Amino acid sequence: MGSTIIDSAIFGDIFSTKAMRDVFSDESRTRKYLEIEAALARVQGRMGMIPAEAAEEIVRHCALEQIDMVKLKAQTERIGYPVLGVVSQLNALCRDKLGEYCHWGATTQDITDTATVMQVRDGLAIIDDELKAISAAMAVLARKHRDTPMVGRSNLQQAVPVTFGYKVAGLLSAIERHRARLAQLRPRVLTGELAGAAGTLASIASGGLKMQAEVMRELGLGQPDIAWHTVRDNIAEVGCFLGLVTGTLGKLATDVKLMMQTEVGEVFEPFAPGRGSSSTMPQKRNPVSCCYIHACASMVRQQSAALLDAMIADHERSTGPWEIEWIALPEAFMLTAGALAHSRFLVEGLEVDVERMRANLDMTNGLVVSEAVMMGLAPYLGREHAHDLVYDICRVALTRNRPLLDLLCENAEITQHVDRAGLAKLCDPANYLGLAGVMVDRVLARVVS
Amino acid sequence: MGSTIIDSAIFGDIFSTKAMRDVFSDESRTRKYLEIEAALARVQGRMGMIPAEAAEEIVRHCALEQIDMVKLKAQTERIGYPVLGVVSQLNALCRDKLGEYCHWGATTQDITDTATVMQVRDGLAIIDDELKAISAAMAVLARKHRDTPMVGRSNLQQAVPVTFGYKVAGLLSAIERHRARLAQLRPRVLTGELAGAAGTLASIASGGLKMQAEVMRELGLGQPDIAWHTVRDNIAEVGCFLGLVTGTLGKLATDVKLMMQTEVGEVFEPFAPGRGSSSTMPQKRNPVSCCYIHACASMVRQQSAALLDAMIADHERSTGPWEIEWIALPEAFMLTAGALAHSRFLVEGLEVDVERMRANLDMTNGLVVSEAVMMGLAPYLGREHAHDLVYDICRVALTRNRPLLDLLCENAEITQHVDRAGLAKLCDPANYLGLAGVMVDRVLARVVS
Amino acid sequence: MGSTIIDSAIFGDIFSTKAMRDVFSDESRTRKYLEIEAALARVQGRMGMIPAEAAEEIVRHCALEQIDMVKLKAQTERIGYPVLGVVSQLNALCRDKLGEYCHWGATTQDITDTATVMQVRDGLAIIDDELKAISAAMAVLARKHRDTPMVGRSNLQQAVPVTFGYKVAGLLSAIERHRARLAQLRPRVLTGELAGAAGTLASIASGGLKMQAEVMRELGLGQPDIAWHTVRDNIAEVGCFLGLVTGTLGKLATDVKLMMQTEVGEVFEPFAPGRGSSSTMPQKRNPVSCCYIHACASMVRQQSAALLDAMIADHERSTGPWEIEWIALPEAFMLTAGALAHSRFLVEGLEVDVERMRANLDMTNGLVVSEAVMMGLAPYLGREHAHDLVYDICRVALTRNRPLLDLLCENAEITQHVDRAGLAKLCDPANYLGLAGVMVDRVLARVVS
Amino acid sequence: MGSTIIDSAIFGDIFSTKAMRDVFSDESRTRKYLEIEAALARVQGRMGMIPAEAAEEIVRHCALEQIDMVKLKAQTERIGYPVLGVVSQLNALCRDKLGEYCHWGATTQDITDTATVMQVRDGLAIIDDELKAISAAMAVLARKHRDTPMVGRSNLQQAVPVTFGYKVAGLLSAIERHRARLAQLRPRVLTGELAGAAGTLASIASGGLKMQAEVMRELGLGQPDIAWHTVRDNIAEVGCFLGLVTGTLGKLATDVKLMMQTEVGEVFEPFAPGRGSSSTMPQKRNPVSCCYIHACASMVRQQSAALLDAMIADHERSTGPWEIEWIALPEAFMLTAGALAHSRFLVEGLEVDVERMRANLDMTNGLVVSEAVMMGLAPYLGREHAHDLVYDICRVALTRNRPLLDLLCENAEITQHVDRAGLAKLCDPANYLGLAGVMVDRVLARVVS
Repeated sequence: MGSTIIDSAIFGDIFSTKAMRDVFSDESRTRKYLEIEAALARVQGRMGMIPAEAAEEIVRHCALEQIDMVKLKAQTERIGYPVLGVVSQLNALCRDKLGEYCHWGATTQDITDTATVMQVRDGLAIIDDELKAISAAMAVLARKHRDTPMVGRSNLQQAVPVTFGYKVAGLLSAIERHRARLAQLRPRVLTGELAGAAGTLASIASGGLKMQAEVMRELGLGQPDIAWHTVRDNIAEVGCFLGLVTGTLGKLATDVKLMMQTEVGEVFEPFAPGRGSSSTMPQKRNPVSCCYIHACASMVRQQSAALLDAMIADHERSTGPWEIEWIALPEAFMLTAGALAHSRFLVEGLEVDVERMRANLDMTNGLVVSEAVMMGLAPYLGREHAHDLVYDICRVALTRNRPLLDLLCENAEITQHVDRAGLAKLCDPANYLGLAGVMVDRVLARVVS
Repeated sequence: MGSTIIDSAIFGDIFSTKAMRDVFSDESRTRKYLEIEAALARVQGRMGMIPAEAAEEIVRHCALEQIDMVKLKAQTERIGYPVLGVVSQLNALCRDKLGEYCHWGATTQDITDTATVMQVRDGLAIIDDELKAISAAMAVLARKHRDTPMVGRSNLQQAVPVTFGYKVAGLLSAIERHRARLAQLRPRVLTGELAGAAGTLASIASGGLKMQAEVMRELGLGQPDIAWHTVRDNIAEVGCFLGLVTGTLGKLATDVKLMMQTEVGEVFEPFAPGRGSSSTMPQKRNPVSCCYIHACASMVRQQSAALLDAMIADHERSTGPWEIEWIALPEAFMLTAGALAHSRFLVEGLEVDVERMRANLDMTNGLVVSEAVMMGLAPYLGREHAHDLVYDICRVALTRNRPLLDLLCENAEITQHVDRAGLAKLCDPANYLGLAGVMVDRVLARVVS
Repeated sequence: MGSTIIDSAIFGDIFSTKAMRDVFSDESRTRKYLEIEAALARVQGRMGMIPAEAAEEIVRHCALEQIDMVKLKAQTERIGYPVLGVVSQLNALCRDKLGEYCHWGATTQDITDTATVMQVRDGLAIIDDELKAISAAMAVLARKHRDTPMVGRSNLQQAVPVTFGYKVAGLLSAIERHRARLAQLRPRVLTGELAGAAGTLASIASGGLKMQAEVMRELGLGQPDIAWHTVRDNIAEVGCFLGLVTGTLGKLATDVKLMMQTEVGEVFEPFAPGRGSSSTMPQKRNPVSCCYIHACASMVRQQSAALLDAMIADHERSTGPWEIEWIALPEAFMLTAGALAHSRFLVEGLEVDVERMRANLDMTNGLVVSEAVMMGLAPYLGREHAHDLVYDICRVALTRNRPLLDLLCENAEITQHVDRAGLAKLCDPANYLGLAGVMVDRVLARVVS
Repeated sequence: MGSTIIDSAIFGDIFSTKAMRDVFSDESRTRKYLEIEAALARVQGRMGMIPAEAAEEIVRHCALEQIDMVKLKAQTERIGYPVLGVVSQLNALCRDKLGEYCHWGATTQDITDTATVMQVRDGLAIIDDELKAISAAMAVLARKHRDTPMVGRSNLQQAVPVTFGYKVAGLLSAIERHRARLAQLRPRVLTGELAGAAGTLASIASGGLKMQAEVMRELGLGQPDIAWHTVRDNIAEVGCFLGLVTGTLGKLATDVKLMMQTEVGEVFEPFAPGRGSSSTMPQKRNPVSCCYIHACASMVRQQSAALLDAMIADHERSTGPWEIEWIALPEAFMLTAGALAHSRFLVEGLEVDVERMRANLDMTNGLVVSEAVMMGLAPYLGREHAHDLVYDICRVALTRNRPLLDLLCENAEITQHVDRAGLAKLCDPANYLGLAGVMVDRVLARVVS
């Protein structure tokens, strides 16, 4: 059982997902080391850099089952890094000292960084899928509620009407931008390392670049122009990307939890028996997923900062900054996965109370359309006079708690120009939605499916 | 005089630059408000949304000299935002109540956000120029020192030889990636806002989108698909970008200050009389710029996190998160400008002590080439035996403080295969640079000029 | 005019206060340098370390009016620090080369750090006063509303009743703890520096400790056991303290802005004409101060992290980390001052709508007291059966939107034990406040006045 | 096997310790829940609030072995918190529905927070022990090397001599301050919660305070004045404390890794076979522990910021902020434990190369004592002239690479006042250590054992 919330047997699937934990597990990391060592041996065997039978023997042993993890822990604690432990175990597994050719010309950081990039690739694939699913679910919501009126709120005050589809479409546009960012950063970050102790391929200069290219091709990664052992902008960029993604999810969670308030009650997290309810307070419908999303976003943003700190590396192999990545990068991915899973669950099953949305629009006796009324009366009364008159009537509506429409109808100056039917139309929030629907359409048109 | 280090009359030009401070000054911000109000009036006048003479009158007064800044301060403190204060002053300046047509259909956040985007545009232009200059200076250094041998250091220990050009080229590759990132994020972030109270253009629905497009065209900005009043990934992305840029500069500063150590002495910040020297300690040559770069990078990374926090906005106008940007975004730009200016000064004038680099390579009696010696002897002695033999000799070199070459020459097993001249060649760090030069060429080939 | 929000002529008094900006202004910092140099000269003159007439002459010129700030800027940019510039100007001001005795035995960081500590002292005094005022205002609110019932909310859902005084008392208890923390950290941090180049007082060993003690006594600071040029836990502790204080203020702002929601309307920021209102949306009463408090708290927490980063200093004078403090420490103080001023304004003038609080308690038809009803019926029906019965009735109340009391009265099983009057009592939130009032008293009893 | 570095089977004992992981494990957390439920039942049974046999029956089942952890996971995922799952399992374990009396009057957060405080107590106990051990080891080093001369470095430049004991004593003074901070924060934070749904003890008002006091006494915790469910300054203060502690350790690691540089070589991490060495680069002695300390400190400072963010709680039970603590608090403790373990290992076994320290002092041909020479000649030549003369000679020493002493002896103006023996004395760094030793004594005198 774990001690971090992510590896906790109790909380692990709340704050993260099994799929993402698998990407960053000890087994997965070690397996990637073996994949890389195998690819290296295969290519070097093919190119005649090491004996073909050595290559074959090494590849044959590059299997996680053959690695003694307890021993690997001891080796890692002694040396500081697990790669040499893996190599030494491979070496011992190979017959006839053929294992000596294992890891030929490579340095510990080559293998570690390349494995990290492979984990990043797998992690980004999961994130891409989740973003796509969230985008699809948001598109459904935006389309369905393109014209569902609700209160738009500014500074937590009821302001003017919007539609629920419009609200969702704003978030959807951000999700689509995240997908575009992901596409742009992938070629930068999905580039491996294989260049020896100081990154110069000194120990294998002849044919080194070709070999490097071949190994990267085998692993499905890009070839670097130069070693990036201590030039970590790509890793930090991934951290920033995760910070941006969880930031948007945090905005989603904020709106949902505010709309779920007892006093608002416009949307609800998907219902599941017992979920978010209280045994003694039947009125409660707690926003459970929103809490986790909020917490994950808060944490990932600080991990982004930590990954920026990890850029402050020294010379050709850094003395501490690199290790920051070992802590922060997997966690940022795993918490992002948790936030994405909750967000997806949330948008795919969100309950929308269209009637309560409508009721809340009417809560201020029509004041949320005062702007519309002012503008509707301006042609008859002059803009400024219309403003002052309506503003005064609104204050009366507020203090006497009376419907704006009724008060407007009681004012002769107004009714000589517009009758009750006309005023009712001006007071109908559904008639003051502006281009909300059009904007939804614009966003939907950009969705990449 | 200021109280923040950035606005300090003493420190301001150390931690930032006048050019960048000008982008974010009260005057600049207010001037942009006026530019936007003028563009809005011009377009609306042209489209017949407001009277042509109103448009003309408004535009005529959209000049900073006509704004009473003391009054604006009082207005801002009362309302919470300066935009309405500017509009009210414009209104008062216009004859015949024509000012009533000012700010038609717009909301405070429209103007504020669009002005911010214009500041971001100006700020990014400065950063782009600085990155280009730094790239050019690094390219010069990388080319000039493509083959200048120096010690490569891993974990702050002398490891194997590299070249100084190789060291610079690694950083240069990051600078070029930053330039690519900048090009990618620009279209996303350089998009204005103009959509009214809740972003739906409700007060100006008819013709609203066309008007919005025209105003953005006048301002040289992109048109948004939908309002982004509370969807702030683009602003946060700029923060992350600044964090990434200063991260790379922090790595540069780290290497330079380590190389400037009395005990290392390989490079020096550009000399200026009195700069970084001590009146009582003539041996000192302090790394002044490196200190400021380090500090700016540390701060900007936390501001990136603050800008990610600002994404957690509520509903259609956020209640606090937005204001985080007001603090963090200008500062992040201004500190980045400071870090860039110091970095440019540093790379454009860096003093490189090629002889000391060479001397340091020899400091361990040749041990930094032990790997080369092992590999050079392997064909004669077998790989494993060569390793063990050389390793033992190296230990002797270390403990007795004797040159590796001499010890190798004293070993008959070795000299029966390779003579002193051959061994000297193996021990020459300049012969163990691998593909350092080739990698420099690869990076240089990618530089966008 | 400034470019940071803090030094902005428009926003400066919103995000900070003049009093705190004055503590960290160029003038104030320079004045403190002069105070320290004067104290040093006075003590050394008295102790015979420098000629008495030199001491007198130096002291005579230690006045800000005699310092050329433009020249000081140039000197600072050349050397990297302003202290030597001040010393050199003092030197030039003194007759007969007596200025040579100025700064005797001191190093730049001695003066800079001691001045910083003096600024910290002044800044903490302001904070202490504000905390005291906020504590007093909260105590008034807590006492006045000790028994004012309102809804307690858990996960933004109405849960069970509390009192408004109880809500305030929770925050008050934190304010009192902050005052206790402040008292504890003061002796740690209010300790100066005066120990020469590497902190050993080498240049003035004889009598050095006594001189150091005397100078600190003159300045009203503690004497250090050992130099702390690169041991910065005390400065970072101040940053953490500011983070903790603004964290509590952020909680206050969160609750206030949530209670100010149109749909809740329980409290309001103090009214000032035009403040937080909208010219077209008369129903709005924006939480203005809450926004600024939220933003300041978000920023200060990141500055705390930056100040922790500044602890990672190297050797006897750090190369970059120290300069982080120059950026972050003044800002953290100034933003905290802004947050405190808004918080004080808010709690001193908070409008409390007791009727709306009561109305909100009734919003769920009495469900917020379902726990009380269950417990009240348990003696008659058995605990488990009472729970199940009441829970079922509550669900009916929820779905049919009927008062819990009415439904209870319609249930014969219940009314055979308790009549309507008894049930009404159980359903009265004012009868289910537990020890809220007693806890208020406990907190009030601890307030240090 | 784990996916976080802390729970990794490979890295877990590098980045943390088993002892600290045990404090925060699923088992430990659940065990504490059971301890609290048992204490609650015991006290309530004693006070007659619940039947004595119920209390007995509940206590009998409060054992981790009786809890089905797989089921608990499912329950937690459904409800959002594990406490009700534990209660429900206890309930089912008890005979005759006596389990109904379990958790009487308590709310989920009461148990969770109290358990957290118990974990904090256990975690702080470990930290206290480590700080004490580090203090003791540093005291040994400071005493032993009270008078061991070495170069003091400012801005990474050799400046003036210090002693190694002085360097250690500066850090020791910070460790002692951390111990004082810990003592001060303990009574604040080691206070439990037990107050029901909204913290008012409404469901158990009669005798509630006494019961609360008794339960806290049983658990060895302080009684709160008022519930702190959403007033989290104490938890955040613990985070800041961990940030401060790791900050000091980060400074230690920085100095050690800089002193371990090949070019400096003054101290070394304790030797263990294979540790930090390279199979191909025998000259390397990598600073392994320093890397981990650096990384842990970087991460903990960001977690401190996250814990400050967690203070921004809403109303009576927060919706997301609380969950930030669940992620950040255990990790901050566990990484701090890792950093402490490495630091203790490091200071308890640090290898000090006194000869290399001495050799480095001589590296600049005596320039590190130029200040001493200036002051030593001042009585004969006048202060200003002595300064100028020595400064000029130092420049010659630098450019011609000649010993300062020799050059001084060649200057007739000097030798007419002081002979070679006298000059040699002035040039001996050991004679220019100022009050370094005295300051060591002052610090040692304060150490609390």
